[in-house]
Amino acid sequence: MRTPWTATVLTILPNVFPGPLGASLIGSALENGTWALHTIDTREFAEDKHRSVDDTPAGGGPGMVMRPDVVGRAVDAATAKSPDAPVVFLSPRGKPLDQARVRELAQGPGVTALCGRFEGLDERVIAARNIEEISIGDYVLAGGEVAACVLIEACVRLLPGVIGDAASLEQESFEQGLLEYPHYTRPRTWEGLEIPEVLLSGDHGKIAEWRRAQAEAITKERRPDLWSRRKK
Amino acid sequence: MRTPWTATVLTILPNVFPGPLGASLIGSALENGTWALHTIDTREFAEDKHRSVDDTPAGGGPGMVMRPDVVGRAVDAATAKSPDAPVVFLSPRGKPLDQARVRELAQGPGVTALCGRFEGLDERVIAARNIEEISIGDYVLAGGEVAACVLIEACVRLLPGVIGDAASLEQESFEQGLLEYPHYTRPRTWEGLEIPEVLLSGDHGKIAEWRRAQAEAITKERRPDLWSRRKK
Repeated sequence: MRTPWTATVLTILPNVFPGPLGASLIGSALENGTWALHTIDTREFAEDKHRSVDDTPAGGGPGMVMRPDVVGRAVDAATAKSPDAPVVFLSPRGKPLDQARVRELAQGPGVTALCGRFEGLDERVIAARNIEEISIGDYVLAGGEVAACVLIEACVRLLPGVIGDAASLEQESFEQGLLEYPHYTRPRTWEGLEIPEVLLSGDHGKIAEWRRAQAEAITKERRPDLWSRRKK
Repeated sequence: MRTPWTATVLTILPNVFPGPLGASLIGSALENGTWALHTIDTREFAEDKHRSVDDTPAGGGPGMVMRPDVVGRAVDAATAKSPDAPVVFLSPRGKPLDQARVRELAQGPGVTALCGRFEGLDERVIAARNIEEISIGDYVLAGGEVAACVLIEACVRLLPGVIGDAASLEQESFEQGLLEYPHYTRPRTWEGLEIPEVLLSGDHGKIAEWRRAQAEAITKERRPDLWSRRKK
């Protein structure tokens, strides 16, 4: 049997998982073996009796920093099990995640997601283990666990069979560098507001044209950054 | 007693919550009443016997769209309870979330987070209820629930008392428009790699200068977009 796409999460909070990843379509796909989820408790790689994973920052300052030796051993254990999965450290200092990277990761064997807690992670282990730093956005979280859920959910929904209607994946935001067009459904009139006439016309050519124009207009207005990258 | 900062989540998957928001510092702050979490099951506002919240898209196409009448009633119920909290729809079409918006939301009364599922949400309800569309990043999720966790966790960690050492919040990524400097901790030598000498010097002025230069260099290299916005 082929090995399913595998997410391995290194965390000091293994009980957080599967959490939201156990719900709905993503959770059903986990149950039916479309993907697999393993957690590794980083604390198990501590060697002192308090199972410390962190220590005070060199040079002083607030907070605690995750130790390179403990994290290095935890990463090595994950890599031994999933040697081909890229190791990702979720951090606001990383490269911003986008749908193109999500697609690449979904097409690979899986991902090993290292979740930080405390002030940060010793820089040496990031370099020594060739860890890819990924940021899910320009804000700061209390730890990497929810960010790992984001990364994994984004990948898993692209795996074959997870979303029933594959056509959904072709018309969504970031395909062709555009935000998605607006949606409407019943009732036809709601609080005096109508569904745009063209969508009720039955003219599929006109509908496609209208949606394309809407997607372009909304991208230009809301995300000039996406729009300008698209035209290059 | 003062009302705590309150997150209200509108979702068809209320069992996902608190989920990761019940763990660690964020979870302790929930238990001790620093913030409050309410979930509203959007399905309870459906009026047919199947409790449908969605219907086929006007104009055709894949997937299903959330109905404006059902979602409108659910939003009204949330707004009746938390009239001053902004209503946010988590969607890749929204304005990208950043730490500045997180700070504003954390300073307010709370947030009402509307989670989409299916293909999308009827556009009319977004306009009619003055809903703010926020995107946590340029990728697509299976639904808004994990994105709501991101938004709420980012806000809650800024509430007074949640993170023990308030100084941590002043030196982190996106303060002063910079990514954070690199961290190091024990052991001093690990796999032949040393902690940078300056951090062991005890010279606090030099350490601060080095960290500042590192933060600037890493921001310039990794995020020219942040760097150029900062200089404006």
